[in-house]
Amino acid sequence: MQFHLNGFKSRDPEVHEASPHALPHGDSVPQQVDVLVVGAGPAGLTMAAQMANFPDIHTCLVEAKEGPIHLGQADGIACRTMEMFQAFGFAKKVEEEACWINEVTFWKPDPHDPSRIVRHGRVQDTEDGLSEFPHVVLNQARVHDHYLAHMRNSPSRMEPYYARKVLDLKVEEGAEYPVVVRLERCDAAHQGQVETVRARYVVGCDGARSAVRGAIGLQLVGGSANQAWGVMDVLAVTDFPDIRYKSAMQSPHGTLMVIPREGGYLVRLYVEMDKLGEAERVSARGITLDHLIAAAQRILHPYTMEVKEVPWWSVYEIGQRICDKYDDVPAGQEGSRLPRVFIAGDACHTHSPKAGQGMNFSMQDTFNLGWKLAAVLRGQCDPQLLHSYSSERQVAGQGLIDFDREWAKMISDKPKLDGDTNGQGVDPKAFQKYFEQHGRFTAGMGTHYPPSRITGEAMHQGLAPGYTVGMRFHSAQVLQINDAKPVQLGHAALADGRWRLYAFAGAQDHVEEGRGLRALARFLAESPDSPARRFTPQGQDLDAVFDLRGVFQQPHAELAIESMPVMLRPPKGRMGLYDYEKVYSAVVRHQPNIYDLRGIDRAQGALVVVRPDQYVAHVLPLDAHAELAAFFAGFMREA
Amino acid sequence: MQFHLNGFKSRDPEVHEASPHALPHGDSVPQQVDVLVVGAGPAGLTMAAQMANFPDIHTCLVEAKEGPIHLGQADGIACRTMEMFQAFGFAKKVEEEACWINEVTFWKPDPHDPSRIVRHGRVQDTEDGLSEFPHVVLNQARVHDHYLAHMRNSPSRMEPYYARKVLDLKVEEGAEYPVVVRLERCDAAHQGQVETVRARYVVGCDGARSAVRGAIGLQLVGGSANQAWGVMDVLAVTDFPDIRYKSAMQSPHGTLMVIPREGGYLVRLYVEMDKLGEAERVSARGITLDHLIAAAQRILHPYTMEVKEVPWWSVYEIGQRICDKYDDVPAGQEGSRLPRVFIAGDACHTHSPKAGQGMNFSMQDTFNLGWKLAAVLRGQCDPQLLHSYSSERQVAGQGLIDFDREWAKMISDKPKLDGDTNGQGVDPKAFQKYFEQHGRFTAGMGTHYPPSRITGEAMHQGLAPGYTVGMRFHSAQVLQINDAKPVQLGHAALADGRWRLYAFAGAQDHVEEGRGLRALARFLAESPDSPARRFTPQGQDLDAVFDLRGVFQQPHAELAIESMPVMLRPPKGRMGLYDYEKVYSAVVRHQPNIYDLRGIDRAQGALVVVRPDQYVAHVLPLDAHAELAAFFAGFMREA
Repeated sequence: MQFHLNGFKSRDPEVHEASPHALPHGDSVPQQVDVLVVGAGPAGLTMAAQMANFPDIHTCLVEAKEGPIHLGQADGIACRTMEMFQAFGFAKKVEEEACWINEVTFWKPDPHDPSRIVRHGRVQDTEDGLSEFPHVVLNQARVHDHYLAHMRNSPSRMEPYYARKVLDLKVEEGAEYPVVVRLERCDAAHQGQVETVRARYVVGCDGARSAVRGAIGLQLVGGSANQAWGVMDVLAVTDFPDIRYKSAMQSPHGTLMVIPREGGYLVRLYVEMDKLGEAERVSARGITLDHLIAAAQRILHPYTMEVKEVPWWSVYEIGQRICDKYDDVPAGQEGSRLPRVFIAGDACHTHSPKAGQGMNFSMQDTFNLGWKLAAVLRGQCDPQLLHSYSSERQVAGQGLIDFDREWAKMISDKPKLDGDTNGQGVDPKAFQKYFEQHGRFTAGMGTHYPPSRITGEAMHQGLAPGYTVGMRFHSAQVLQINDAKPVQLGHAALADGRWRLYAFAGAQDHVEEGRGLRALARFLAESPDSPARRFTPQGQDLDAVFDLRGVFQQPHAELAIESMPVMLRPPKGRMGLYDYEKVYSAVVRHQPNIYDLRGIDRAQGALVVVRPDQYVAHVLPLDAHAELAAFFAGFMREA
Repeated sequence: MQFHLNGFKSRDPEVHEASPHALPHGDSVPQQVDVLVVGAGPAGLTMAAQMANFPDIHTCLVEAKEGPIHLGQADGIACRTMEMFQAFGFAKKVEEEACWINEVTFWKPDPHDPSRIVRHGRVQDTEDGLSEFPHVVLNQARVHDHYLAHMRNSPSRMEPYYARKVLDLKVEEGAEYPVVVRLERCDAAHQGQVETVRARYVVGCDGARSAVRGAIGLQLVGGSANQAWGVMDVLAVTDFPDIRYKSAMQSPHGTLMVIPREGGYLVRLYVEMDKLGEAERVSARGITLDHLIAAAQRILHPYTMEVKEVPWWSVYEIGQRICDKYDDVPAGQEGSRLPRVFIAGDACHTHSPKAGQGMNFSMQDTFNLGWKLAAVLRGQCDPQLLHSYSSERQVAGQGLIDFDREWAKMISDKPKLDGDTNGQGVDPKAFQKYFEQHGRFTAGMGTHYPPSRITGEAMHQGLAPGYTVGMRFHSAQVLQINDAKPVQLGHAALADGRWRLYAFAGAQDHVEEGRGLRALARFLAESPDSPARRFTPQGQDLDAVFDLRGVFQQPHAELAIESMPVMLRPPKGRMGLYDYEKVYSAVVRHQPNIYDLRGIDRAQGALVVVRPDQYVAHVLPLDAHAELAAFFAGFMREA
């Protein structure tokens, strides 16, 4: 955590200095903004929190509810999402507060007495080394709280405008602020008042019944599985031994999933209810909380569960639906039109909650979009970049829909009994196997963006096979040489819109001047072709757009910080103080070496280019200066 | 982190429900309190934060300053202090925010050109495994902030009363609230107004010029070393390579110590100034900031340092002074009098700042006292217990004074040049060696309380040699069996005034009923001699006073939570929900086994009794029920 760069201030370093450029929060929504975010759920808050870090961009977040939520549907937080939370500075807090999912247990009917369930399997939830963060669960309302605190403490001091519903939205092509949105206030004091906002861009994060989606003529397409499920958060007394494990129970009475929750006592239960008839909706069934509890108790037999308190419950039907486009440019017209309106989260994909993916995919949607909008609004990138949001995220969303369809079907299938090789239903072992096979996907690591202007061709993947181009940057421990502190290399990536250039040195690069890491650093600092020179605005710090980090193979005591090139020790801020936290040794006591973990070529080293949303954009040889320059010239604009 | 026990509440779990029993904060100090704490520095805040956790005890904190400080003298936070912060719930925050001291480097005059300094040594700051926390440095004002937040969020909602100076204090023996303190308000709005508070107990944490100390007739005794030192916090541009390491420079121009600080840019420098004449005080010297900077620059030669900003600086003289008693009962009268007034922190010991011990010892003083006062005020322990505060902490303080006298002398000595075996001065290698040898002491692990009514004789130390009776409980990782989460065993110890009984099971105790851990748990739950039965008030949770934790040798999958005795899975709160977080396996993947780390007898197991301040009170065989009962009967009172 770095602070005091522009002078000592005695205060919580998470509370940033308010920017004089920020849009002040008022009683009415501003009439004109750069970005209007509709909906303060996980997608909208990720979007707003990202934009809050850029006070020069005026962003307004509106939400139909009258205030922050206290209960929320979602609770699963995948490892990948924790990595993103780290970029916003609150992963460690979530890690402390949330419930960790360490193992998953599987239960099936006892072959000797199928009315009783027995444990038949136990698997580690997340494979070793997949992420530096655990898979956790936490009430969605608390995730919101962390984002809201981040926004409040940001240079923008951003607060949502509550109790605003979208009335209508239209795009007036050619205008500077082309998107016109009318909002209706829905709190008692202002009921019926209408506000009009003009925005350069609108992001609709307004849920499955999205008004923004409707306004741009998009639809969720897909079907329903005609299967009713109940979900309830309970405080209960039970003798079921795995009540603090994520557990899946298959029984003749249906399927039950246990998700332990934060605080050590609360538990979420997903309970399979009846099959619905064709065209029947769950709302017609009149399923009550008592039905849910009774169903859970039947499935748990021979164990008992006495429910003491139910803070929240709901009944839903499974369905998988998705939009074929996530913005307002119809397919095929990308060459001639630029997107102005985007949708994200439940507004463009809905599915079953039981793989714990909804909130996670939604947040990743807007983490993908946030930096792009900022780069375009700041004139750093040309607006064609914005097409990549729909093309990248819609494909990722389709993968989720496909996974969920299969997983939901397995969960709802009757379990096959031991020895039954012909009967209908799912073999409990196959069920467990499917869960294990999809561990990386459910941890959020399945996303793989195809080559595009912002994702290079994997021509040099062999230099660093552990950093797959198009996938998320996989952190590992390294040692900061300025103070011998072990740190996670990936935690250099804050949600600040900057590109990270992780340069892994070749074997002799600590002394070699003419090539390798030092030559790259010199190229970046001095060459007229250097992206850092071309695309960093005058007067800003050397690392304002491109943040070069160097990892060396030698132990830290053999590396001299004072001999490092200026890009690895840039003078910064109003006093020109050196930033010393950019040079690392791969040698960390009691830790595996990052070169071994990620297969980095020790002789040549490698340059791993990472996007502001933590995805690997390119892997290049350290000497590929021209390729590096060409890559950024492909979508960036001169400062 | 456990919460939601008495019902789901959607909010920050660090914000506790306000207690209806708490003393409300008003405009004037309350007229009558259980505990009056004077001084809101590190000692006073630790005291107040501890008492804030007990809303049934009415505590008032007064401070002469008009509000929270923004700058503070102290910055070193020893590993032991981090362990205590963990009990208050903010260690992880400090770990994120603070600067880590990982290595210390040593510099001496270049033998070829003694006007230049050269690095001659580099040592690891904290030995491996000494603590689960690092040694860190952080502005004292931020430490205060964390305590103040803890108090504000506690069930007591405690806030300091600022701008109150102690006018006088007297003890009226025999009264129920015997200590009468008159306070003068010193803010502009209330200047000169006098408030009178009557208290059962007063804790003077009012610094080196303590009015409380004066009122009970105690004095700091010791001398001054006639050596002037300067200290400054700087933002500077320098080519000195170790500016982010703790470094000690011995040069012909004097000694300089570099302490890197939080945020990556700020640095504290301790600069040796001139020797003072006999009876000369530093204030007479007229030493200015320019003198400090010039002296630091001379010592750093050939490196340069351009100072850009100095948020804080000071000049002081070294001295080591201590009180021979930390309470108002004169030595020898302990049998006939009970203490009513205590002093802590700088009020009873002052010394040089350069070993970074002042703030740490001060906080440990009141962490020692806090639980004792609470236990006496709640009628849990007889008031003779309070004598142990002075007897334990004064001896610990004397150890600090002795250490500091030697260390300060070495730091101020001129360095011997290489090959000079006769000359005056200190050999740089001997200097480095002394630092290394005292690593455990400066980490805060040197404190060893002698046997007393609350610290047993180490008759059974062989059962767990890694848990020295009288020293702090040394945490290690174990695996919670209810959810397979790796946790630090020592983090069970919150600042809640409870005793921890860590029962390490013998090899067969997971199935054995008649002896070992299960028999101990049954004794505690059922026997009329059980301290848990005798000393836990009716109607409170089974673990309200004694918190039994069980560690087993088997992997977690071989341990059945449902078969654990009631003391290891107690029903709690208004709904009788099971607390599942008390049973562990010693087998944690990729981690050493706690039985090996601490030498625990695998055949017999061991019971490690830990005081509310995290010190080991006793090591006993699991079957020593009578000895356990007798130990607590020695100072506890029937509920």
